[in-house]
Amino acid sequence: MAGDPLSSSLLGALVGDGEVAALFSDEAELAAMLRVEEALAQAQAEIGLIGEDAAFRIVEACRTFVPDWNGLATGMSRDGVVVPELVRQLRQAVGEPYERAVHLGATSQDVVDTGLVLRLRDLAALLAGRIAALVETLRLLKRRDGDVGLVAHTRMQQALPFTAADKLDTWIQPLERHEEALREMEPRLLTLQLGGPIGNRGSFHGHGDALADALAERLGLAFAPAWHSQRDRIGAFAAWLSLVSGTLGKIGQDIALMAQNEVGQVRLASGGGSSAMPHKSNPVLAEVLVALARFNAGLLGTLHQALVHENERSGAAWTLEWLILPRMAETTGAGLAKAQALADGLRFVPSAAGKGA
Amino acid sequence: MAGDPLSSSLLGALVGDGEVAALFSDEAELAAMLRVEEALAQAQAEIGLIGEDAAFRIVEACRTFVPDWNGLATGMSRDGVVVPELVRQLRQAVGEPYERAVHLGATSQDVVDTGLVLRLRDLAALLAGRIAALVETLRLLKRRDGDVGLVAHTRMQQALPFTAADKLDTWIQPLERHEEALREMEPRLLTLQLGGPIGNRGSFHGHGDALADALAERLGLAFAPAWHSQRDRIGAFAAWLSLVSGTLGKIGQDIALMAQNEVGQVRLASGGGSSAMPHKSNPVLAEVLVALARFNAGLLGTLHQALVHENERSGAAWTLEWLILPRMAETTGAGLAKAQALADGLRFVPSAAGKGA
Amino acid sequence: MAGDPLSSSLLGALVGDGEVAALFSDEAELAAMLRVEEALAQAQAEIGLIGEDAAFRIVEACRTFVPDWNGLATGMSRDGVVVPELVRQLRQAVGEPYERAVHLGATSQDVVDTGLVLRLRDLAALLAGRIAALVETLRLLKRRDGDVGLVAHTRMQQALPFTAADKLDTWIQPLERHEEALREMEPRLLTLQLGGPIGNRGSFHGHGDALADALAERLGLAFAPAWHSQRDRIGAFAAWLSLVSGTLGKIGQDIALMAQNEVGQVRLASGGGSSAMPHKSNPVLAEVLVALARFNAGLLGTLHQALVHENERSGAAWTLEWLILPRMAETTGAGLAKAQALADGLRFVPSAAGKGA
Amino acid sequence: MAGDPLSSSLLGALVGDGEVAALFSDEAELAAMLRVEEALAQAQAEIGLIGEDAAFRIVEACRTFVPDWNGLATGMSRDGVVVPELVRQLRQAVGEPYERAVHLGATSQDVVDTGLVLRLRDLAALLAGRIAALVETLRLLKRRDGDVGLVAHTRMQQALPFTAADKLDTWIQPLERHEEALREMEPRLLTLQLGGPIGNRGSFHGHGDALADALAERLGLAFAPAWHSQRDRIGAFAAWLSLVSGTLGKIGQDIALMAQNEVGQVRLASGGGSSAMPHKSNPVLAEVLVALARFNAGLLGTLHQALVHENERSGAAWTLEWLILPRMAETTGAGLAKAQALADGLRFVPSAAGKGA
Repeated sequence: MAGDPLSSSLLGALVGDGEVAALFSDEAELAAMLRVEEALAQAQAEIGLIGEDAAFRIVEACRTFVPDWNGLATGMSRDGVVVPELVRQLRQAVGEPYERAVHLGATSQDVVDTGLVLRLRDLAALLAGRIAALVETLRLLKRRDGDVGLVAHTRMQQALPFTAADKLDTWIQPLERHEEALREMEPRLLTLQLGGPIGNRGSFHGHGDALADALAERLGLAFAPAWHSQRDRIGAFAAWLSLVSGTLGKIGQDIALMAQNEVGQVRLASGGGSSAMPHKSNPVLAEVLVALARFNAGLLGTLHQALVHENERSGAAWTLEWLILPRMAETTGAGLAKAQALADGLRFVPSAAGKGA
Repeated sequence: MAGDPLSSSLLGALVGDGEVAALFSDEAELAAMLRVEEALAQAQAEIGLIGEDAAFRIVEACRTFVPDWNGLATGMSRDGVVVPELVRQLRQAVGEPYERAVHLGATSQDVVDTGLVLRLRDLAALLAGRIAALVETLRLLKRRDGDVGLVAHTRMQQALPFTAADKLDTWIQPLERHEEALREMEPRLLTLQLGGPIGNRGSFHGHGDALADALAERLGLAFAPAWHSQRDRIGAFAAWLSLVSGTLGKIGQDIALMAQNEVGQVRLASGGGSSAMPHKSNPVLAEVLVALARFNAGLLGTLHQALVHENERSGAAWTLEWLILPRMAETTGAGLAKAQALADGLRFVPSAAGKGA
Repeated sequence: MAGDPLSSSLLGALVGDGEVAALFSDEAELAAMLRVEEALAQAQAEIGLIGEDAAFRIVEACRTFVPDWNGLATGMSRDGVVVPELVRQLRQAVGEPYERAVHLGATSQDVVDTGLVLRLRDLAALLAGRIAALVETLRLLKRRDGDVGLVAHTRMQQALPFTAADKLDTWIQPLERHEEALREMEPRLLTLQLGGPIGNRGSFHGHGDALADALAERLGLAFAPAWHSQRDRIGAFAAWLSLVSGTLGKIGQDIALMAQNEVGQVRLASGGGSSAMPHKSNPVLAEVLVALARFNAGLLGTLHQALVHENERSGAAWTLEWLILPRMAETTGAGLAKAQALADGLRFVPSAAGKGA
Repeated sequence: MAGDPLSSSLLGALVGDGEVAALFSDEAELAAMLRVEEALAQAQAEIGLIGEDAAFRIVEACRTFVPDWNGLATGMSRDGVVVPELVRQLRQAVGEPYERAVHLGATSQDVVDTGLVLRLRDLAALLAGRIAALVETLRLLKRRDGDVGLVAHTRMQQALPFTAADKLDTWIQPLERHEEALREMEPRLLTLQLGGPIGNRGSFHGHGDALADALAERLGLAFAPAWHSQRDRIGAFAAWLSLVSGTLGKIGQDIALMAQNEVGQVRLASGGGSSAMPHKSNPVLAEVLVALARFNAGLLGTLHQALVHENERSGAAWTLEWLILPRMAETTGAGLAKAQALADGLRFVPSAAGKGA
């Protein structure tokens, strides 16, 4: 899945995430696809579908491959997927007599989807690490400021006194559930996709399952039947992304409300400035969290349109996924980074209103 | 969560699900809320917060309660939630000297959310049963028609020959994963919500956790800290609903494509008629599955907007959930019922195109 | 388009609109479809496609028609559209020798879509009237409270002092533009849909345009080529609905923020109560406006999925519209009614914060 | 509004639009904002708010301005909007004694929103030109292939014979309406946004309207009261974008269906290749149109969430717009470019099925 980073622009400075975007860059996608082609050749040699020398040469070519990017772009535009042209270039690099052993029996979707899963594994690790760090920061905040007296608000009205610890619990607990849900989801998500042209492994002439087993082993992925027309794994992961950014959006909304001058229950390390009003200190990070949550929520609803993936491969639905999933990943990553920065500089203060209530 | 059934209209005859809608009817919601009030009183008596006689009287009143529906509607409209008026009516029914023991220390959201969870338990069981039945039907279909030769289609073009069994695998497998994901999600979803006015159980004067424990036990729900401003449970379940209907939408889209006159790879038990063209046999059920999938996908994206649930209770975000979740439930249920009817009457046929390829 | 009213439930008491829902009730849809069948017969007699006596009998039957609702529901479920069964019942009511003159050359979509447009005309008038009334109320409010000193807020922080008049201008102006946009859209929207089975009026044997002209005249709609597979009219009107409720959502959000205890720049005629905190006065109507705006926004994004209306009639895309458009109409109507009630009871107050800034 | 081009990646080669993306690049945004600052100075000199020499120096500085991009990115990240830092850099470039005359009385949103409108004007012209060209191509296609006999399909089933002209009419007519709707919308859309910090032009000390008049004149935009918290203009334009891509999605879906091997009613100039099945010719462009339509539809629903723009400026809602609108513009532009390429190579063929029916 080719990248489309927010991070490379002024807007990206506000809402992008370079680290996540890097996982969805053209370079990262190419590297992941080459990793799949390489492991495919090795696995095929292992079970005897191609020779050891062919596999050796393919591995070598994959590791030293210099792409013709213009050619790949042209192929992408023509074929709707980059793999046919990539395979052509790769076969050229491999040269005779091993050309035909490249990508043997595989189809575009095997390479693209498995290449995606490899990067989702990195993404999941990255996001899990950030969630853990954020939870840790919030726990420290609770230890430090937990006793600060605040006023709870329900339906935008003052309700009753409570403490910063009570508030922080409502932020920490869903994050902990997201960690747990991710762990549960990973065995389903981090799964090899190998099916051949029409997804039944028929192109591997009876060795499909053995090949898939060997390939999954090499890539460190779970074995599963081909799933390329079954997009629930992607849809479930996207839902998880939106749940994470939704939780962060709630945190951001809470902070923006508490940071109101009239409420003053939190103080932020630094606020954004205004071109017209130098006295202002705007809760920019908190607002960004809300924007990212709403963006990801909407993207999720659109990604789930791609579950209606007709037949054995839908060019339309698959392309729709490509347009959305990297963006959701970056949005979630950016949210976690912003939330971390916000939490790092957050201080609860017993506001006048708090005291008065 | 008050109901809003599709099922009670002509459109409902096409896309509604009376059985699911019944879980979200006003009557069902009221019954669930009374069940919570009753169990709350019992649990409070159990741990000594109210007397046994008070609990006895409250249970009695809950079981014989005759609501003033007009009053409830007026209260809903005025307060944005039905509980204040319900509690008023219930206290009146209980009468002195036990009035104040009703709903003691609890808040609207405890009753509404826990009442919702009770019905989500029924819903989950209902949907799980339907998925299991559908999987069973599809497996039987595979046994009967699995060897029928079809042509796989990728990107809307004929690809290679394969079999009905191959096709059916792509329908069955995601359904199996949905079953598994639901089982994993249930412990997180089917959880007591009890927090008191601001969610910290402070209104139970140090007995909150004990009360929650006793109440969860009585209701057969899991114990958890109050979660009323943490809507990830709802968001995750909604995502699951959309994944199910997305899978069904894919099945529907496949069938509509295979049922094309020019393709003819399936025959349907019965097709819909046309007011102008008597010769037609329309794949109505298949089309409905696609419509329901797209509807649920969009609703999911909107429901996730409600994750940005500000402060200790958001009237706006909570109301938004109410507008969406029952609809998603009914849409998913209807999809499963339609898919079952479709599968029951489905026959794979080796089409001319299939033979020729 | 069969109805699916929010208004008939407890939730409907909070967010429904009985007047709008009535336009989308089964009864209203049936009445509109009969109006179309009747006018079709008259127009066909006018241009000589059927006899005067046939038209006379059909008109008579339409006006005295007693539907078999169960039959219609069964037909809807079987055919995916109610018209085939309706025509069957209507032909029976007309009786020999005029049976075949009923619905002559027409198709389901002619009747359903034109019947919808007739009701959209009523809806547009209803909503335009409500917008005008709301604008009038806001103008009166500006006259009465316009000089009240408030503090403007940007990015959730106090900015500079301004007046209630300034604030009200930002509410009134978009409503005025919505009025204007509706007037501009109406000639495109309120258009006859008549195409026959495949939309080219071929079934009227060369008299299609003349018939459409006569029929449009009778129904008071604009003449246009058949548009049944071109759903931009519906999509544009839905966008207008969402723009209206979005504006109302902004008003609601502003009021909820100004009504915060700590801010206190508005006072509401009546707030909602809490089951646990008798001191509270919740801005329920304001919150509802936000919920309705977010709901309609999401529905719009899903309705636009139905623009991908394949071929000469998409059962899937058309059904999706049915699921959404009546709901959007009712949501918009409810928003206007709630906004009116909110504006009626609104009073701006120079808050302490306002004075201090 | 900073850019976020799809066009700069492999995915962009498939679904991007470099020409539209260029309008939303950082460079284009900066140029537009400088154009606003320059015209603002000129207009302020014209009505006497600043001196002629100050205006002269500011114009000169704007035209020769060399931005410190890193500084702008840092400012964007800190302030949530790029203008404060831009004004700081610009004032430095202007130097004493005219520094304070830069951006006098204006606020970030004046510069960002008016700068956006300037680019929307270019975008509207670009898209209108493409729609006109596409309509022209489709008309020529109708002239050439209009008599080709096809079979209409309703509900995914063969209905009756009709012609390519009939089919083409359903593609051309909505495009014509989009042209008309854009013309009607432009006076509302292409409007100056000038309000000062809180949108009431108070910072221009009684000369706000005169200034706005002069500035609008210079920029060739319509005069209007400040509208920065009234986002209906943006929401309406976004809806138009989605209507256009929805129409294109319908065309794409029709073509993908007609291009099925079994149907064969169109022949495409060139189809995409497969990495595994050399015999295939995939309707890639047609599928892309469907994907873009669904993407834009979903984005529209999310953009309308930003109509709930709280108070006098919402950092959250405004940021959400930035995340979406450029993407919708590029998606629409890409759709038109793809549709043009598709139409250029399209040939209707009387299919076997067509003949047989």
